[in-house]
Amino acid sequence: MKIVDYKEVKAEAVDFEDVKDVKVRWLISDKDKAPNFAMRLFEVGPGGYSPLHTHNWEHEVFILEGEGVANNGEKETKLKSGAVVYVAPNEKHQFRNVGDSIFKFICLIPISK
Amino acid sequence: MKIVDYKEVKAEAVDFEDVKDVKVRWLISDKDKAPNFAMRLFEVGPGGYSPLHTHNWEHEVFILEGEGVANNGEKETKLKSGAVVYVAPNEKHQFRNVGDSIFKFICLIPISK
Repeated sequence: MKIVDYKEVKAEAVDFEDVKDVKVRWLISDKDKAPNFAMRLFEVGPGGYSPLHTHNWEHEVFILEGEGVANNGEKETKLKSGAVVYVAPNEKHQFRNVGDSIFKFICLIPISK
Repeated sequence: MKIVDYKEVKAEAVDFEDVKDVKVRWLISDKDKAPNFAMRLFEVGPGGYSPLHTHNWEHEVFILEGEGVANNGEKETKLKSGAVVYVAPNEKHQFRNVGDSIFKFICLIPISK
């Protein structure tokens, strides 16, 4: 059984095109021999965002802290602590911080894609 | 894109042997056509617990609120908000509330087991 506080897991800058001020912590992954899906914690700084994009795998997201929006390419929906987001495979999506503090959420993806 | 506050999802009593005061909300599941894994939110009342058991699938857990312990059959480890727990397939496990308020966590499992 692996037990760790998320703050002990290294935060890595997400360094892609169209990403601003996003860090990721890989909380559980294939490095732990997790067979099916990985858990990450994202921290988006004020004004920051993930890219507006699609891919053929899903996201399951739980919002922990802060104020953000989910953008599906047509509209934006506000997100706060306790919100749950399911992004289906091939669905356009982006997460943006619209508040003054860190926008934090956990996001799970399949390991085999 | 499905977006919902977890409080809008129905909480169901977990009614098995060796379970005390546990409710589950199925936040994302195959009902949403999630192909690989499901997200649940568990709320364990003061003094409550899940069963000490094993099964051949994994759990990926993120603690949201309250004070609990993870029991692997040999020792107990304290859990609080921000803790991450990976339970491998066939590993003995139990979650117990040791505080005065609701012990809340999200727990993901594979859909095909």
